[in-house]
Amino acid sequence: MNNKVYFTPGPSELYPTVPQHMQEAMQQKIGSISHRSKQFQEIYARAVAGMKQLLQLPDNYEVLFLASATEVWERAIQNNVREESFHLVNGSFSKRFYETAQELGRHAQQHEAPFGQGFHVESIRVPKTAELVALIQNETSSGACMPVEEINQFREKSLGEALIYVDAVSSLPYPAFDFSKVDSVYASVQKCFGLPAGLGVWLVNDRCIAKAEAILASGASIGSYHRLPALLEKARENQTVETPNVLAIYLLGKVLEDMNSKGIQTIRQETEAKASGIYTFLEQSAIFAPAVANLQHRSKTTIVANTTMPASEVNKHLAASDMQVGSGYGKYKESQIRIANFPAHSVEQVEKLVEKLRELDR
Amino acid sequence: MNNKVYFTPGPSELYPTVPQHMQEAMQQKIGSISHRSKQFQEIYARAVAGMKQLLQLPDNYEVLFLASATEVWERAIQNNVREESFHLVNGSFSKRFYETAQELGRHAQQHEAPFGQGFHVESIRVPKTAELVALIQNETSSGACMPVEEINQFREKSLGEALIYVDAVSSLPYPAFDFSKVDSVYASVQKCFGLPAGLGVWLVNDRCIAKAEAILASGASIGSYHRLPALLEKARENQTVETPNVLAIYLLGKVLEDMNSKGIQTIRQETEAKASGIYTFLEQSAIFAPAVANLQHRSKTTIVANTTMPASEVNKHLAASDMQVGSGYGKYKESQIRIANFPAHSVEQVEKLVEKLRELDR
Repeated sequence: MNNKVYFTPGPSELYPTVPQHMQEAMQQKIGSISHRSKQFQEIYARAVAGMKQLLQLPDNYEVLFLASATEVWERAIQNNVREESFHLVNGSFSKRFYETAQELGRHAQQHEAPFGQGFHVESIRVPKTAELVALIQNETSSGACMPVEEINQFREKSLGEALIYVDAVSSLPYPAFDFSKVDSVYASVQKCFGLPAGLGVWLVNDRCIAKAEAILASGASIGSYHRLPALLEKARENQTVETPNVLAIYLLGKVLEDMNSKGIQTIRQETEAKASGIYTFLEQSAIFAPAVANLQHRSKTTIVANTTMPASEVNKHLAASDMQVGSGYGKYKESQIRIANFPAHSVEQVEKLVEKLRELDR
Repeated sequence: MNNKVYFTPGPSELYPTVPQHMQEAMQQKIGSISHRSKQFQEIYARAVAGMKQLLQLPDNYEVLFLASATEVWERAIQNNVREESFHLVNGSFSKRFYETAQELGRHAQQHEAPFGQGFHVESIRVPKTAELVALIQNETSSGACMPVEEINQFREKSLGEALIYVDAVSSLPYPAFDFSKVDSVYASVQKCFGLPAGLGVWLVNDRCIAKAEAILASGASIGSYHRLPALLEKARENQTVETPNVLAIYLLGKVLEDMNSKGIQTIRQETEAKASGIYTFLEQSAIFAPAVANLQHRSKTTIVANTTMPASEVNKHLAASDMQVGSGYGKYKESQIRIANFPAHSVEQVEKLVEKLRELDR
């Protein structure tokens, strides 16, 4: 039996109801049902409806399932960029989206901010030729976030027809997006949805769909089985193109029901309260300090701290109390810690974590 | 509680040990561990080692994990075909691979045999310009198979440098392939491995890797995160590029251990014995008849029968005994049934199925 509480930034702690849902799934033999059956269609419809309700998603949006958020990067470029994309880059994951566009032969441009910093949005000029603007609401590697008010400025900044994409991989459903100001938002289930990894969620509006159809009509390739028109054709039948991760879609639907029962407002308020507790401690600590200087750009869901004690030592101390935080990303492996503050983490668990981290200060 | 035994051709019955492995996975919190941790590397290494042992895979092969076999089609074309592929088509899935090549802008050629028939291999000429020859060991839609001896002729038939790809989605590990005569074999875990869907297995040899590197070096795009060199770089560290379906890789490793304990010879013998029992019944039945005429081309793992009683009626009868077979594929939905004969299906279960089908003859 493993009793550890995982504050790692994903995969992370499972939502508390997941073990029970998994047991039910095994008893109901969900792993054996056909992905073309009515039973699967109901499972699919429940997950989509749950997501739409939780996010208060407008009618012009579709909820699509891919294998990972990494796959979303590729499909976004294939389906929505003929020639040119524009990327805000301030960490490893926003950089990977930029590189993905290059690997797929597109002309990708970036506006870069230092690791651990947000952007000075006022000073950013979006090239008129950009077909896709890649924003990152929450940079999982550095803990820098982009407030929704900053995201909302990009529609006006994009003088052309650019589609506004938002990486909310490790924050959805926390940010209260204005979905009319963006065109696509994407996430992974192993972060704030508290599920085992193996499913990416891609929200697209009618503008993304129209762009994919236009590129296809021009004779260019937009990929094969996961081209947007193929995804949509199946989605409208509550199915997927390939045999999907049925178990993950089942669990997502169940957890979304639980989250909707709790209410998105409560989830957001709890997230903010827990984050506030963690940041207050970090500010006071002798060992730790928030890695992101600007208060507005401090993530509420993946909280990164500089640490004078190596991250591995911090985790050794926490292991005695059955807890673990994430190490820093890449070259910050030992000099930073990353604390996931997801809906799966209870107020009590976060309080206990802070208590144990505080012991190191003595 | 659902006590139904699924003879559907995938998703299908789970391998009998899966519920226990899943319970252990939840107790060990496998859904929460980092995909960059040592613990994950061990899980990954165990799955790869188990697969290599079960298939007696030569050293020049790599075991790679994708999201589905459908994804393998796309990655195969992207990574291994610059201009031209050649496809043997005799059903819906072999046709989809052919169409995938077209959707990705390649010049795809096909040699077609009627649905439900194998190929007359002697008469097939492989174009010298073909870079990839797509064979289908087991056509899940029609129940036609290609014996290994036929597959082994294609290396000589390919006058050029063509890579020989084999679809064994719904048959691996049953066929005893000569891996020196082919270059890539792929499968899905929800078929003969008896796992929940959400993972594709792509076996590639050094020739596939060299071809991908050559295309990349020429300046062409071979995709992004799932390009072969990126997959390999991570595979050699016992990791994946993206956060994968960790739970599925864990379960695969566990089931492969179980299968290796049982032994591949026993699994193959049991598969043949069960298939023999089913075909013998079908030959004698007044209602059913084997859909594939040529004995050599009758699949041992997905057995398809023509039925004079609508497939839905057959399943109504079986439902009373908590069993279900697959309906026919596409336009054969009611006029055929498909019976999965996977390692997860015990001799006793198959005998009981035949007994219940026999009741319909009275």
